[in-house]
Amino acid sequence: MEERQEKERGIMGQEQEDEGKSQGQGASMNAQNSMAERGKNCTEMDEKGKEKGMEEGEMKKEIELDGEVKVELCQPVQGLQISYIKGSDLFGYVGIEAVLDQMRSKTMKAGFEFNIMVVGQSGLGKSTLVNTLFKSKVSRKSCTSNYEEKISKTVKLHSISHVIEEKGVKMKLTVIDTPGFGDNINNENCWEPIVKYVNEQYEKYLIEELNVNRKRRIPDSRVHCCIYFLPATGHRLRPIDTEFMKRLGKIVSIVPVIAKADTLTIEERQDFKERIRQDLTANGICVYPLKEYDEDPEERILNDRIRDSIPFAVVGTDKEHQVNGNKVLGRKTKWGIIEVENVAHCEFANLRDLLIRSHLQDLKDVTHNIHYETYRVQRLNESNMNFSELGLSTWLLENGTGEKYESESHL
Amino acid sequence: MEERQEKERGIMGQEQEDEGKSQGQGASMNAQNSMAERGKNCTEMDEKGKEKGMEEGEMKKEIELDGEVKVELCQPVQGLQISYIKGSDLFGYVGIEAVLDQMRSKTMKAGFEFNIMVVGQSGLGKSTLVNTLFKSKVSRKSCTSNYEEKISKTVKLHSISHVIEEKGVKMKLTVIDTPGFGDNINNENCWEPIVKYVNEQYEKYLIEELNVNRKRRIPDSRVHCCIYFLPATGHRLRPIDTEFMKRLGKIVSIVPVIAKADTLTIEERQDFKERIRQDLTANGICVYPLKEYDEDPEERILNDRIRDSIPFAVVGTDKEHQVNGNKVLGRKTKWGIIEVENVAHCEFANLRDLLIRSHLQDLKDVTHNIHYETYRVQRLNESNMNFSELGLSTWLLENGTGEKYESESHL
Repeated sequence: MEERQEKERGIMGQEQEDEGKSQGQGASMNAQNSMAERGKNCTEMDEKGKEKGMEEGEMKKEIELDGEVKVELCQPVQGLQISYIKGSDLFGYVGIEAVLDQMRSKTMKAGFEFNIMVVGQSGLGKSTLVNTLFKSKVSRKSCTSNYEEKISKTVKLHSISHVIEEKGVKMKLTVIDTPGFGDNINNENCWEPIVKYVNEQYEKYLIEELNVNRKRRIPDSRVHCCIYFLPATGHRLRPIDTEFMKRLGKIVSIVPVIAKADTLTIEERQDFKERIRQDLTANGICVYPLKEYDEDPEERILNDRIRDSIPFAVVGTDKEHQVNGNKVLGRKTKWGIIEVENVAHCEFANLRDLLIRSHLQDLKDVTHNIHYETYRVQRLNESNMNFSELGLSTWLLENGTGEKYESESHL
Repeated sequence: MEERQEKERGIMGQEQEDEGKSQGQGASMNAQNSMAERGKNCTEMDEKGKEKGMEEGEMKKEIELDGEVKVELCQPVQGLQISYIKGSDLFGYVGIEAVLDQMRSKTMKAGFEFNIMVVGQSGLGKSTLVNTLFKSKVSRKSCTSNYEEKISKTVKLHSISHVIEEKGVKMKLTVIDTPGFGDNINNENCWEPIVKYVNEQYEKYLIEELNVNRKRRIPDSRVHCCIYFLPATGHRLRPIDTEFMKRLGKIVSIVPVIAKADTLTIEERQDFKERIRQDLTANGICVYPLKEYDEDPEERILNDRIRDSIPFAVVGTDKEHQVNGNKVLGRKTKWGIIEVENVAHCEFANLRDLLIRSHLQDLKDVTHNIHYETYRVQRLNESNMNFSELGLSTWLLENGTGEKYESESHL
C-alpha cells in the first residue's frame, strides 16, 4: 500500500508542542486496539512500541526538510502517525466531551446485564453473601427439605434474574448458583457441569453474533464473574479448590473469597491468606484481576493492591443492628457485633468495591475481550471456518482495498 | 423448553408496588433488544407489546393463587418477566451507578472514532464548515493550482484524520472529502465512487469482525455521517441532489445543509427550506434522524423538532470579530457581521449541536445498528453463508441448550 505519510505542520502555529503531544497520543490510541494481544505477550507489545518510536523519529526529519508537510491519509490506517490537536489549540469550544453524557444517557435508558456465579460447598453462605452484596434477596438459600434432592450426585446449576434499579441505573443481575458442588463423598469431575455451563453461554453468544439476522443487542448470559468460596479452615487450598480454579480460571474471571471469615483470628486470617496466595501461584491458577490485562501503570498500581490482598476474607448478613446509634449490617454474637461493611472487621467492603464499584465494567470487558474471544478462536478453528470461502475477502481484493482513494498533494 | 416461570413474591415485603413497576420495566428492557426490528416495522412491535401485556396478566393470576411464587429461570430467557427491585427496596446502598463512571473513565482512556463525510460541488465551503464545527484546521480546501487535476472527470475521495482532545476526551476525527462531486458537465453516476467508498468501509469492518483472530477494538472507518451541501439557490432540490440523497440515504446517515446561507433573506430561507422538505418527502429520501429509529417518546419530541427545521441553513468561517466587546466567529460585510454561532443569524449552532453535542453517539449507533447491519445481512445472504454447516448450532443441540439446568422448586 502506498499511503502517504506526512505531518501537518502546526495547528494554529504551535507545531513543536503538538509534535511532543502527538507521539504520546499516537502510542496511546494504538495501544487500545491491541489490548488482547498484549494479554498474550507483553514483551512483543513493548517491541512494537519501540518500533513506533523510530518511525516517529523519521517523521521529524521529514518536517525539518520540508516547509509545510501534513499527515494526509488515503484512508485512516491504524498505527500511522496522526496529528494531534489539544483543547487549547482550538479556536473555541467544540463540545466533544458531550459524547460522555450521550453514552451515559443511553446506558441509563438501556440498562445493562451482569451475571455472577457462586461456587462452593453448601453452608458457606453463598446466597447470604450475594444478598449482602446487592442489598436485596437476589439469591435464595438452596437448602431443601427434600433429602433426596440434597444428596443428588450431580452439580445442578440454576440462575435467577432480577432487575435492580438504583439512582436511575438499571442492572439485570443474574445469579448462577451451583448447588451440590463439593458436597458428595466422591467429587470427581464436579467442575464439569460448571465448565459446560460457562462454555454454553459463550456458544450461545457466538451463535447470536454469527446469525445473519441478529439482535441489535445480543442477550448476554455469559458469566462475568465466578466467586469461589473457600471454607475458613485456616489451612491451605484443598485439592478440590486447586482443581476447580485451575480449570475455571482459564475460561472465566475467578474471584476467590474466604467464606464465614468470622471464625478466624487476625493472625489466622493473615496466615491463611498468605498461604492461599502461595498455593495459587504454585499451581499457576489465574484469578481476577490478571496482571497481564492491566491497561496502564495507574491500573497496575490499583490492581497490585487488590492482588496483594486476595482472597478477601468476608462475612455476609442480611440483619441490621444498632451500633453507636447507627444501623449497620452485622452479625451479633455474645462477644460483639461483626460489622460486615466495616473494613476494620472484615473484607466484605473490598469485595463489594471490586465487584461493583470499581471493576464491574472491567469484569464485563475481560469476559468479552479475553474469555469469549479465546472461546471464539478455538471454536472457529475447530469448525475449520474459513471466511475466504465465502467470497468476503476476495470481494474486497477485486474491488480495491482503498488504494483507489489516493491522497492528493496540496503542497 | 420447559423453563419454569414463577414470580418471586415481594422484595422486602412490597410486592404490589414491585408488580406495578415490573411491567413497565420488563417491557423497556425487552424493547432494547428489538430496536433494529422496530426500525423495520413499528406496528409489529406495538403488537408484541400488547401480547406481553397479556402474559403479565396471566402471571398476576398465578400470584393470587399461590402464596409464595417466584421467577426462577433455568437460564435467563429474553422477554420473560423478571422481578424488579427499586432503590428504595434495597437494604442499603449498592453502588450500581458506579458503572457509569467506570464506562466514562474507559471511554476517556480509549478515546473514540468519528468519521464525517462532506459532499457537494466545489465552492460551497465544505472545508470551512467542517473547520468551524471542530474549531480547528481539520479539513483543507482542495482548490489546486493544477487545472488538470481540477477537471478530473472522476470524483476522488480522500480522508484526513486528526485526534482532537478537549477536556480529556480524545476523538479521532476523520473527514472524508469528495472533491469533484457535481463539478463536471456530465455528472452521471458521480455518486458511484461515494457509494463504493461507504460500502467498502462496511466490508472492511465485516471482514475484521469475522476474522478468527480479530482485534479487540475493530478500527472503525465507517462513515457515521454524510453532510450534503445544497447550494443556496432558493429554488428546489436539483436532480443531482435527489439522485444522490436517494441512493446514499439508504446506506448512510445523511444530514443535508444549505451552504453559504448568508445569501438568502429570512423569507427566502424559510421558503427554500420548506420546499426542500417537500422534495425530500416527495422523493422518499431518508435523512437523519429517521422517525423509525426514535427510541422513545422523549426522543421523538426532540427529533421531531430537528426534522421540522432541516435542512439547516449554515454559514462557516474561521475568522473572529469583535462584537460588543466579545470575540465571535463571524463574516464581516459592509452591512454587518454575520455571527456564525448566533442562532438569530444562521443555523450553524443547530447543526453543531446535532452532529456533536446531542447526537454524535446516536450517529455512531445508527451506523452500527442499522446501516452496517443492513449491509452485513445483504453480504452474508449473497455469500450463502450458513453457519449451521460449521457445526456451531449442531454442537449446541448435541450438548444441550440449557434444558439440563433445571430450576429447582424452593416452595
